[in-house]
Amino acid sequence: MQTLQEKASQWSGVDTADAFAIDDTSLFQKLGLQTFINLSTNFYTRVYDDEEEEWFRSIFSNSKKEEAIQNQYEFFVQRMGGPPLYSQRKGHPALIARHRPFPVTHQAAERWLYHMEKALESTPDIDADSRVKMMNFFRHTAFFLVAGDELKTQKQQIPCKHGASKPAES
Amino acid sequence: MQTLQEKASQWSGVDTADAFAIDDTSLFQKLGLQTFINLSTNFYTRVYDDEEEEWFRSIFSNSKKEEAIQNQYEFFVQRMGGPPLYSQRKGHPALIARHRPFPVTHQAAERWLYHMEKALESTPDIDADSRVKMMNFFRHTAFFLVAGDELKTQKQQIPCKHGASKPAES
Repeated sequence: MQTLQEKASQWSGVDTADAFAIDDTSLFQKLGLQTFINLSTNFYTRVYDDEEEEWFRSIFSNSKKEEAIQNQYEFFVQRMGGPPLYSQRKGHPALIARHRPFPVTHQAAERWLYHMEKALESTPDIDADSRVKMMNFFRHTAFFLVAGDELKTQKQQIPCKHGASKPAES
Repeated sequence: MQTLQEKASQWSGVDTADAFAIDDTSLFQKLGLQTFINLSTNFYTRVYDDEEEEWFRSIFSNSKKEEAIQNQYEFFVQRMGGPPLYSQRKGHPALIARHRPFPVTHQAAERWLYHMEKALESTPDIDADSRVKMMNFFRHTAFFLVAGDELKTQKQQIPCKHGASKPAES
């Protein structure tokens, strides 16, 4: 059976070493907090205005834009060499579990990455080398979450039987 | 509805600020790699020899001890200020998703913490202040995983009906 990260690498085309090249240097020290805030603001401004792909925008319809921005930049800052802003406020990232309410399909991953690439391009303080590293991380991570999303539809240990209407309760 | 970290705080009695006080200083710089290796070795030696609580030892029966030790100390090192050993080898920690195969019950969390407290005490290079910080982190995290474990038994979006034998495939 393929592991989560094997699926992530296969589907994204980005191996683990390239995905985590963000750890070679501190992107937070290089770019600074404001750049991360700008990036996430650019990203979610695009997402919440996505009129071409209404299905994608609708994934975020129950989330507040300002909160989505804060969650994202705090996680990026923490993951890319800065202070652990996300964990201080919300605990473990637990990326897969926290994406459980959302339909993280291959198609959704590609749309997320499309907007992120445009957001990176429209954040001029992010140099080309950082942009490549971040996109590799984002691409691998997006498909890691697609792999995680598929766990939701895996059989529970005790499958539904005899017309039972809920999954295993141990 | 309570969030994962609210449940973790309530059940563990450790709030988020205390749990993540491990981030105040770099425990990795203070303690060094070998201390983390020793801690995880002490921990899993206890776990794999747990003859009082056979049900707990059996949770680990499909995992190799050496691999369990490496996974654990690499994650601890990465999370406590050291190099990202875990992610370089295995990708995102994704704590809840990676514990999915295991029955992370309240009882299992308490037994895990019992062994970890003993393991910390038998690792003399870990000073009292570090030990308190680490135990707060471990206690909060153990119950964060119990909260995550309960997601497994939540209804899928499309519940089992009409005698269907597997959960939603959308």
